[in-house]
Amino acid sequence: MSDSLPAAGLQLQSTVTAQGELNLTLAEVPVRAPSADEVLVRVEAAPINPSDMGLLFGMADMTQAEAAGTPEAPAIVAPVPEKFLPAMKARLDQPMPVGNEGGGVVVAAGESDAAQALLGKTVGILGGASYSQYRTLKVDQCLALHDGTTPREGAACFVNPLTALGMVETMRLEGHTALAHTAAASNLGQMLQKICIADEIPLVNVVRKTEHVELLKGIGASYVCNSSEPDFMDSLTDALAETKATIAFDATGGGKLASQLLTAMEAAASRNADGFSRYGSTTHKQVYIYGGLDRSPTELTRNYGMAWGLGGWLLTPFLMRIGAEGTERLKQRVADEIKTTFASSYVQEVSLAEALTLEAISVYGKQATGEKYLINPNKGL
Amino acid sequence: MSDSLPAAGLQLQSTVTAQGELNLTLAEVPVRAPSADEVLVRVEAAPINPSDMGLLFGMADMTQAEAAGTPEAPAIVAPVPEKFLPAMKARLDQPMPVGNEGGGVVVAAGESDAAQALLGKTVGILGGASYSQYRTLKVDQCLALHDGTTPREGAACFVNPLTALGMVETMRLEGHTALAHTAAASNLGQMLQKICIADEIPLVNVVRKTEHVELLKGIGASYVCNSSEPDFMDSLTDALAETKATIAFDATGGGKLASQLLTAMEAAASRNADGFSRYGSTTHKQVYIYGGLDRSPTELTRNYGMAWGLGGWLLTPFLMRIGAEGTERLKQRVADEIKTTFASSYVQEVSLAEALTLEAISVYGKQATGEKYLINPNKGL
Repeated sequence: MSDSLPAAGLQLQSTVTAQGELNLTLAEVPVRAPSADEVLVRVEAAPINPSDMGLLFGMADMTQAEAAGTPEAPAIVAPVPEKFLPAMKARLDQPMPVGNEGGGVVVAAGESDAAQALLGKTVGILGGASYSQYRTLKVDQCLALHDGTTPREGAACFVNPLTALGMVETMRLEGHTALAHTAAASNLGQMLQKICIADEIPLVNVVRKTEHVELLKGIGASYVCNSSEPDFMDSLTDALAETKATIAFDATGGGKLASQLLTAMEAAASRNADGFSRYGSTTHKQVYIYGGLDRSPTELTRNYGMAWGLGGWLLTPFLMRIGAEGTERLKQRVADEIKTTFASSYVQEVSLAEALTLEAISVYGKQATGEKYLINPNKGL
Repeated sequence: MSDSLPAAGLQLQSTVTAQGELNLTLAEVPVRAPSADEVLVRVEAAPINPSDMGLLFGMADMTQAEAAGTPEAPAIVAPVPEKFLPAMKARLDQPMPVGNEGGGVVVAAGESDAAQALLGKTVGILGGASYSQYRTLKVDQCLALHDGTTPREGAACFVNPLTALGMVETMRLEGHTALAHTAAASNLGQMLQKICIADEIPLVNVVRKTEHVELLKGIGASYVCNSSEPDFMDSLTDALAETKATIAFDATGGGKLASQLLTAMEAAASRNADGFSRYGSTTHKQVYIYGGLDRSPTELTRNYGMAWGLGGWLLTPFLMRIGAEGTERLKQRVADEIKTTFASSYVQEVSLAEALTLEAISVYGKQATGEKYLINPNKGL
């Protein structure tokens, strides 16, 4: 145990009031000394992922956000539509720390061997509140990075890498041999493509823009279908028929895309089928929604027989499904390939205060491909 | 083996032509002698189930159906919208026999012991073409009914009883302890309610009409929610919270009902939850669509976190999932309770020729609760 622990550190907090107001503020919170199986991490990098937005913005209407506070202690205020308040009952009037993951340096450790082994190491961390200068965490919430890996390189070593690996594992566990992915040019999508090339798994990428087709082909993608093209359904069906992909992961959620995937899978499955099957093909077709880029309702035409499923997919329950040993195997792969397969890129690195400006929010709040922000809670300090 | 087999028998056939015309006709088809492990059944009762309609009507516009043929050899002609023809490619211009199940008497049997044991017995049959005077089937496509059970009583011993039992088994297999069901006043729904009372399983029934609330309460239902009432979502949430039902079987498919079930399950799950869960409750909520009474698209609002699933549910894959032994156990229960739990009722018993009248089709084609028809292919012969 170091005896020179900092007494307190800054933390970004999101509060939704019972009156329907979102407050984003910086708070000075005490630093808790690690217990036997814990470490204290000085956080130097934490990505703003799409999966952080829900907690951060609390369903507020960010187009009406206003700056508040002072330059040293900035704040953001925005109205939350009343209809969303009941769903957030349990968090009303409570300051919530934000940030699923990050990277930093272990500056103090509990007395257990496992904790001591991490002292001085650069680690990736998972467990919330990563938009904080200091985080006290359990050893198993850390991933020890290899020497020469920086906190910035390791900042996104959990959510996207484990999600991408989780998709491939889910595909295998549920008996499929190829998969499809939407919003496929994202950081996550690029990781998935690299994994699939390494593991020789056919992957059908779905994107909405021509430049994203080029981007994915540039990293070796064989199948990229552009949903903005008039022949989208034909090209999707061709790709699914060729790869035999019968499971897809959809980041968008709303609209017709999930249903189009099932329709094209069914058309691919029945293309070579002989004989009439009154309830459609017997091949099980599965789509998992793992994001909500499109908040509109999901519309299903159900013209794909009865052997289909749709559902939510979330990293944490998946990791529970594969257990501690399976999770450790995936984490080691991430550490080994953090500079290649699992490399992330950011357009901007900001301090906690800089993250709470309207200008920054207007960029990272869009969740656009290629415009990801990284918070460095200890920047310039 | 009997040596007095009939040479041929009448069969109802449905043909969709490449030109987009549905033809319903009666054909004289040869009777095939049973092989060692087969029996020949004289069919005396076959229900017209919702699950028969797809094959029977071939997506034709039955509001434009016209009578054709002669009184002795009646026929029905109706136009099939061109947009549906690609989905039926594999059946175009082929006369398809219809009828999933039925009841009859074994009039000839192959030389195997199992086949001989059925000779003279009244049996329920599954396997298609039950709208025929004679059917040659494998022994395991028959369910030997107890002495004193009539073909009419046993005519519907497969589809509805095994589907209702299959829902309860699926509930158990997937770790739930209570269930919900829509279009719940149907023959199937009444069976399900009786099973649930016998097995002490809480069941939430969803109906659309006041008289169906009364009907279900009359057979002992504790929970009946009427989707036509303004407080439907409240009463559904109350019932789901009380029963802890986290799986539902939906006969309608289209519209918002499946999504409403998931929304109410989520509200029920989070009613007593303490603490804020950013991705919704961790309780898995499942809806299976097993019918398509509403052909419109399914609309999902996805305001129920990430722990949810929706999918098609079909009897045959379910029986494959539980295997031969599991299936046999369910079949025996059906035989034992065919006059009580699994009793079906019909508004009309018709001959094959009478089934092919515009008047009859206008009734059974509606698939309305309490207006089920029974075909007796040997009626009046």
